[in-house]
Amino acid sequence: MTEHFNPTARTRPNRLRDRVRDEVAAVHAILDGGPICHVGFAGPDGPSVLPTLHARIDDQLYLHGSTGSWMRRVENAPICVTVTCLDGLVLARSTFHHSMNYRCAVVFGTARTVTDTDEKLAALDALVERVSPGRSAEARGPNPRELAATLVLAVTIDEATAKIRTGGPNDDDEDMSLDVWAGVVPVRTVLGEPEPDGTPPRALPDGALAPVWTT
Amino acid sequence: MTEHFNPTARTRPNRLRDRVRDEVAAVHAILDGGPICHVGFAGPDGPSVLPTLHARIDDQLYLHGSTGSWMRRVENAPICVTVTCLDGLVLARSTFHHSMNYRCAVVFGTARTVTDTDEKLAALDALVERVSPGRSAEARGPNPRELAATLVLAVTIDEATAKIRTGGPNDDDEDMSLDVWAGVVPVRTVLGEPEPDGTPPRALPDGALAPVWTT
Repeated sequence: MTEHFNPTARTRPNRLRDRVRDEVAAVHAILDGGPICHVGFAGPDGPSVLPTLHARIDDQLYLHGSTGSWMRRVENAPICVTVTCLDGLVLARSTFHHSMNYRCAVVFGTARTVTDTDEKLAALDALVERVSPGRSAEARGPNPRELAATLVLAVTIDEATAKIRTGGPNDDDEDMSLDVWAGVVPVRTVLGEPEPDGTPPRALPDGALAPVWTT
Repeated sequence: MTEHFNPTARTRPNRLRDRVRDEVAAVHAILDGGPICHVGFAGPDGPSVLPTLHARIDDQLYLHGSTGSWMRRVENAPICVTVTCLDGLVLARSTFHHSMNYRCAVVFGTARTVTDTDEKLAALDALVERVSPGRSAEARGPNPRELAATLVLAVTIDEATAKIRTGGPNDDDEDMSLDVWAGVVPVRTVLGEPEPDGTPPRALPDGALAPVWTT
């Protein structure tokens, strides 16, 4: 049976319902597939949005940062975490129907500070694994000082929604005969040639650059 | 003379000052170089962050959407517009020093509704040009009905800041001898092979896929 999120006032779609996906698996796939997220929170002078890395374990979405960073300000505060993967430019015959293909997941919740050491270590491992599979076992793990200097926040993924656009342009019938190229230009996020640090460079293990994103 | 933004309570850096860039040109370059932005606003039940396309003309940052979309809710409201370009994965010898190379611009302001038709058309042209240079002259322009159905918002870019990380890992001296690959894996956003819509497909003009982003 497919599991869906229960809609709330801010996740219930008001238009373009065919693009909305409320299945838990669809939201999780976008969260897992996007390299970074954007975190929104209410600052003293208005809304703020900052980018950071995220990782998901089951229904928990983890963020981390220095205890001296902006992340301290969102502890126990309502936040919105949005992950967007840009998949294509949609070039239509009219400027009006230009669009983009994308996958976007939005999670609303309260930022819980992770104080349990096991949970904190698991979250930090997951964050490193999202960047490079196998890395958490290879690199030196955090010592007590580093662990104390790192703030890990968690949001329960229970108020969430996704929006996905795929396919070509939705041109008006009367524009179909215009002499204008129309179609989709795919957009992909790719990794370049690794640039080693230090002399002599060590070997990069097999699978270290395995694709962990779906962009 | 280099022009800088005046710092405010929310743009003044509190740490990692060497990553902060307050030059107007640096902020503009990131806004122009990133394909999409994330817009933060205060919803009735807490902060929201949604992705959209943006375009800049001088000190005005333009957003657009359907008059039936969420964008209607941010008219005359304080918003935060953030553009992030991910440039690389920074793999360090310790998990603690893992990082990412990125460029991020953050603009705070109030969303002004663009009602002047000339300004609105110029903004819509700029939005299309950002996706594909030359496109605004080639595709059919907006008719009065389409123009009325499109909401264009503008934010004056005068309270803004940027953050840029470049270079390799900042490992601790005592970790330099660990047998772990360290370095940077570049991340790039690239365009794939265009997928034409319709039969027979028209020709894609020279320069239509000229790189407009710096990711």
